[in-house]
Amino acid sequence: MLDKYKKAQKEFVRQQVEKLNNIGVALSSEHNLEKLLGQVVSQALGLAHCDAGSIYIKEEDKLAFMVAQNNTLKKRYGKGYEDKYFKKFQFPISKDRISGYVASTGETLNIGDVYQIHPDKEYRFTDDFDRRNNYVTKSMIAMPLKDPDHNVLGVLQLINCLNEEGKIIPFDKDIENLIQSVSSQAAVAIRNAQLIRKVKEAHLDTILRLSVAAEFRDDDTSEHLRRMTTYSVIVARNLGMSEYEIDLLKYAAPMHDIGKIGIPDSILFKPGNLTKSEWEEMKKHTIYGAQILEGSDSEILKASSIVAMNHHERWDGSGYPRGLRKNEIPIFGQIVSIADVFDALASKRCYKEAYDLSNSIEEIKASRSVSFSKHIVDAFVQGLEEIVEVFQNSQKSVFEQAPIIEVNKVEVQFH
Amino acid sequence: MLDKYKKAQKEFVRQQVEKLNNIGVALSSEHNLEKLLGQVVSQALGLAHCDAGSIYIKEEDKLAFMVAQNNTLKKRYGKGYEDKYFKKFQFPISKDRISGYVASTGETLNIGDVYQIHPDKEYRFTDDFDRRNNYVTKSMIAMPLKDPDHNVLGVLQLINCLNEEGKIIPFDKDIENLIQSVSSQAAVAIRNAQLIRKVKEAHLDTILRLSVAAEFRDDDTSEHLRRMTTYSVIVARNLGMSEYEIDLLKYAAPMHDIGKIGIPDSILFKPGNLTKSEWEEMKKHTIYGAQILEGSDSEILKASSIVAMNHHERWDGSGYPRGLRKNEIPIFGQIVSIADVFDALASKRCYKEAYDLSNSIEEIKASRSVSFSKHIVDAFVQGLEEIVEVFQNSQKSVFEQAPIIEVNKVEVQFH
Repeated sequence: MLDKYKKAQKEFVRQQVEKLNNIGVALSSEHNLEKLLGQVVSQALGLAHCDAGSIYIKEEDKLAFMVAQNNTLKKRYGKGYEDKYFKKFQFPISKDRISGYVASTGETLNIGDVYQIHPDKEYRFTDDFDRRNNYVTKSMIAMPLKDPDHNVLGVLQLINCLNEEGKIIPFDKDIENLIQSVSSQAAVAIRNAQLIRKVKEAHLDTILRLSVAAEFRDDDTSEHLRRMTTYSVIVARNLGMSEYEIDLLKYAAPMHDIGKIGIPDSILFKPGNLTKSEWEEMKKHTIYGAQILEGSDSEILKASSIVAMNHHERWDGSGYPRGLRKNEIPIFGQIVSIADVFDALASKRCYKEAYDLSNSIEEIKASRSVSFSKHIVDAFVQGLEEIVEVFQNSQKSVFEQAPIIEVNKVEVQFH
Repeated sequence: MLDKYKKAQKEFVRQQVEKLNNIGVALSSEHNLEKLLGQVVSQALGLAHCDAGSIYIKEEDKLAFMVAQNNTLKKRYGKGYEDKYFKKFQFPISKDRISGYVASTGETLNIGDVYQIHPDKEYRFTDDFDRRNNYVTKSMIAMPLKDPDHNVLGVLQLINCLNEEGKIIPFDKDIENLIQSVSSQAAVAIRNAQLIRKVKEAHLDTILRLSVAAEFRDDDTSEHLRRMTTYSVIVARNLGMSEYEIDLLKYAAPMHDIGKIGIPDSILFKPGNLTKSEWEEMKKHTIYGAQILEGSDSEILKASSIVAMNHHERWDGSGYPRGLRKNEIPIFGQIVSIADVFDALASKRCYKEAYDLSNSIEEIKASRSVSFSKHIVDAFVQGLEEIVEVFQNSQKSVFEQAPIIEVNKVEVQFH
């Protein structure tokens, strides 16, 4: 009997350890913060056998409500209901809300019935969500997501633990312990995802600033770089490129004209027409740019070097510096080229007035199979609505998009 | 009786889960690859109750031996013996070695006695280490470090499992399972550390290239940027700055002259002396640089902006653009200033021959409490040996240091 028990015990331990380990590995592997938070909630929901869960992330002295999952509402409203009903929003951390109490004290609250919280407690349950959604919250765990340095990064809330018959029961201590394990893994995964995002954003910021600095030498502006990078991303997306390739392009596109650094002021800033030899020198900015950027191990710089070299080549072979034709031109060069040309057409320059937007679009369409491939022009046209919006409102460029996806939906109050 | 067992079982599960969870959290938190690998080995040693362990990391078609810990040798030779006896080295992956077999097949080997491996097996035990060190390897687990996409990132080897009396026994299945959990956590932590390193290196590479591009406009070279950044790091270290501050400085220093982009060719490339008004314009490169870099959320760009603005200020107030005095000058500006001045003195420029190295050093020493603070000059002098080495051999700059620390010790053959 005991032997059988010991064996079962061992097997049980192995399974529990394996399950939690797999969760830990899965969480550590996800570097997209939004996806990661979604995973944390769904893993916690599964482990705790409960109906709903949500995560708040600490942003300075505020809590931001980030993700929520609710099986009852999902049954009622169907898949994808979360995007309809839940919106990211922030509120100041204060101890009178459950989430705020947990975030400021670092304590875990395990509450049997949120409508029966003892009046001596500092925190209250806000029933806005229940009333709005005709939902009844009863049992709840609210647990801090603490990193290994004991900083509270956020709060995980789980709602309505269910027994085997589907009846709501309080969360027991074993479940609390299990969730504790997931929370600490989640916290370090969140910290890592935030770190990677921060490092990448700093890189993008550096590229943009140093590229803008180089462009100071021309009459372009940072707005041009932002817009044309955004158009490039739209075209690449419509061509079906992978997220990874699109990311490379996003870093590489702003550096396309960096080689202008090597062009003498007398040519770069000449008010009138360039002589033939001046023009030959001017064209070399493509080669200079490629030289500045080539030979690195970094995939970003490899892509940038290709873009710098090839963003003035034309589909019919009439471009420079090498007069490449058709698919000899690297695809990144082709994409940045159409983005650059369109923005130049539609913008005012020192030597020309801006074209009318619709004329610029017509010109791009007319250059199908001439300056640009059919596919590229089609991908551009497919993205026109978005492109025009970017042109008319530079704020919407890829650089300005909030790093955290905001769903533009009705705001609901959470606990 | 059964109740007692159930309770004990629960408690045991809780402890195991907590232990493994803490290991997972600790591993995920460490982003320095070398420290991380050391932690993996010591955690595995503790969990498996064994005498020795080591890690190999896959680098393309080779395995690199990275870290080892051996309690018997530690007792014999004392703490720190690892640095004396173990050196990082690489060898091609082939199935006739245990580590190579595991790396290429992805199988775990659990061997009771490595001297009794059945001749039918493809892999052999190489006894070089045992012979050289008068050590007896017996039981061994060799396990792949697999990331969640099933790529083998490396191999973890554990040697000589010990029972309670300290006798060598084979590794049992339970221990193998435990180590399996640690391995998968370790693999994802290793992948994350490698990713963060790669992203940071790409950023540094971009900064260096775009800064060099800007310097094309002056007579400086990338070597100057590399050297002066390395001197800055040496001085900062001797001033007792934190690793984080030193890291910021490493990114910021190369961008100090980026504002020269805004100086007209006619001034920047003028062969003779500048007129007073030309000189006033030239001095503005500090302000232009600060403008290019300011206003970012990135700590790196904040530090860079400060460096650009302040790297021509002087301790006695004789510098520009603002004529700041003493501690009004931000410390990053002071450090980059001394590094920049020393390298300029010691190098040949178009308008001057290089000073003799010892004259340059004397000049820096003489400027103590004049151009530079006492502390900065003292930190510089303290680092002179290293600085001179960097000057004489640019290869040794912070950019060239292998990202993986190599210990220059006798090479030993591992299994």
